[in-house]
Amino acid sequence: MASQLLPSTKRLIDGLFHGASSAVARTSLARSITLVESTLARDRFQAELLLDHVLEQRKAMAEGPATATSFRIGIAGPPGAGKSTFIETLGLSLTKKGHKVAVLAIDPSSSVTGGSILGDKTRMTHLANSPDAFVRPSPTRGTLGGVAQHTNEIVLLCEACGYDIVLVESVGLGQSEIIIDDTVDMVMLLVPPAGGDELQGSKKGIMEIADIVVVNKADGELKSAAKHTAVDYAHALQLARRKEPEWKPTVKMCSAREGEGIDGVWNVLTEFRDTMNAAQKIERKRARQSSKWMWNQLHQELMVMAKKNQFVHDEASALAPDLAHGFISPRSAARKLLEDFLAHPKGK
Amino acid sequence: MASQLLPSTKRLIDGLFHGASSAVARTSLARSITLVESTLARDRFQAELLLDHVLEQRKAMAEGPATATSFRIGIAGPPGAGKSTFIETLGLSLTKKGHKVAVLAIDPSSSVTGGSILGDKTRMTHLANSPDAFVRPSPTRGTLGGVAQHTNEIVLLCEACGYDIVLVESVGLGQSEIIIDDTVDMVMLLVPPAGGDELQGSKKGIMEIADIVVVNKADGELKSAAKHTAVDYAHALQLARRKEPEWKPTVKMCSAREGEGIDGVWNVLTEFRDTMNAAQKIERKRARQSSKWMWNQLHQELMVMAKKNQFVHDEASALAPDLAHGFISPRSAARKLLEDFLAHPKGK
Repeated sequence: MASQLLPSTKRLIDGLFHGASSAVARTSLARSITLVESTLARDRFQAELLLDHVLEQRKAMAEGPATATSFRIGIAGPPGAGKSTFIETLGLSLTKKGHKVAVLAIDPSSSVTGGSILGDKTRMTHLANSPDAFVRPSPTRGTLGGVAQHTNEIVLLCEACGYDIVLVESVGLGQSEIIIDDTVDMVMLLVPPAGGDELQGSKKGIMEIADIVVVNKADGELKSAAKHTAVDYAHALQLARRKEPEWKPTVKMCSAREGEGIDGVWNVLTEFRDTMNAAQKIERKRARQSSKWMWNQLHQELMVMAKKNQFVHDEASALAPDLAHGFISPRSAARKLLEDFLAHPKGK
Repeated sequence: MASQLLPSTKRLIDGLFHGASSAVARTSLARSITLVESTLARDRFQAELLLDHVLEQRKAMAEGPATATSFRIGIAGPPGAGKSTFIETLGLSLTKKGHKVAVLAIDPSSSVTGGSILGDKTRMTHLANSPDAFVRPSPTRGTLGGVAQHTNEIVLLCEACGYDIVLVESVGLGQSEIIIDDTVDMVMLLVPPAGGDELQGSKKGIMEIADIVVVNKADGELKSAAKHTAVDYAHALQLARRKEPEWKPTVKMCSAREGEGIDGVWNVLTEFRDTMNAAQKIERKRARQSSKWMWNQLHQELMVMAKKNQFVHDEASALAPDLAHGFISPRSAARKLLEDFLAHPKGK
């Protein structure tokens, strides 16, 4: 394993700090993401060095008490809410305001089906073509923890590269909603009109983590349905337990297709950021998130170490027949493997 | 930590082998489940001893090549499919045929919301009151891995107690469907009529692991809708990749409420069991499952060891400020913790 920064990694770091609008920076960012997502031991070490350098630079640039200058927004919602259109419209309006916007995606379901998100890049063509935006290509396959872990690191890379707004799209319902709250500063639930009844099942979980609910598609024939949906959600939010004493989650309507209401949504987002920053809650949330990812990462590393430990491997082979016949419980077998690992943690 | 079998654990073991129909066995089974689910170190050790004794007994009774005499059936499906009614009807019909039936539940969502399954016991009152059935009380809170891990062990306890049919209900969609396939011999997808469109999103994942699809509520006004749904699923199954070359997943209709079609469903289940047993596929699947649970358990144990390791703990405290300020990446921090752990795996 290379214990030194490779020249190729050095070039990536230089490229990242080249300025977000440059083609060099974008290419370096895309390649850095690939490196960070890689599961090869050699790549993983280089990725760690890359992240260390990025953070050292960050440390060098930091002045006084830490305040979040970037803004990480998670966007969750059921299929059919129009997430891609919303992100594209919001993203374009932000680039017009002078922001640099990065768009990422979390897809925990990909660990199960092996599927990846279908062409984010092609879906958001206008945004992807903007020199002030970076739309992450479809993520590669990976484990549930891996994908989310990498998203967290990729956010850091985007910020190093100069993207001050990071939009993280949560694809799929269920676990992803929880994971997104571990990744971003603010969680938005985007819903289509009249989705109330179908959402009942998943509503409770997401309501607990949503800082804002946006009812999209409030245009044409759906406008009145959107109003009803907004009222329903406002009512549900009043009943939900608050995440933070400083912030009362609100409901907004918009039409991403027609570009209406987007500014109103953005006003709420900045209000949240300012309120939470004033209370130093964003930095605190990020600190909690980092701690969580650290332990998750340790978790994964330990398992990799255990699986490749020769003593553990030999014991597992020896136990296999009894385990297969049900003569030893998985729990007892695991204890034996644990004892082997603790006795020889660094292997042969 | 008690390193010996406690008298109370010994009594549980004796009770388990008292015969499934006896009140003593059922009480012992319920208490054994509580012990196995416990997260207290002392209980966990006793649970391991309990499982070891149960499996030793099993080994002593085994003759010749292993063939599965019990049958573990997983039942997944969306809310509204009528899973409880179906399980009650099937369970009662099986007890009439002379089987001993245990009903368990997997609810991975409970790890997130902290919620538990609402009164399984009260829902299936007829079955729960049968002397030949054991309906597991609501599971306690736990981690995702924990709940499923325990389900696997609880299946072993039920079988030791004489229950030859174990029905595992998968509550909630998503991850639970995958976990259930790691726990049972055969997976049933139970759906309501005309659920086709809403299921599209989750259909693909579950179709890949379903060995049989049962359209419930095929009665009264819903009968023709049920037929359409059955045709839709039959078509979808033809397109899905087969899990096993020996078995072609089939679609059945039934009305659990009116008790119609239940025998037809059971015929398919036994056909699956006989076919797969003949090919020794059930034993092989169980062996794979045990191996998976063993590694999962090791995974969890390692994390517990690492978290309570004083060296790791001290390092984590020292790193906390830099981690909170984003001056060190979670990945680098994790590597430092890993090095501390590997240097002193047994702590101070």
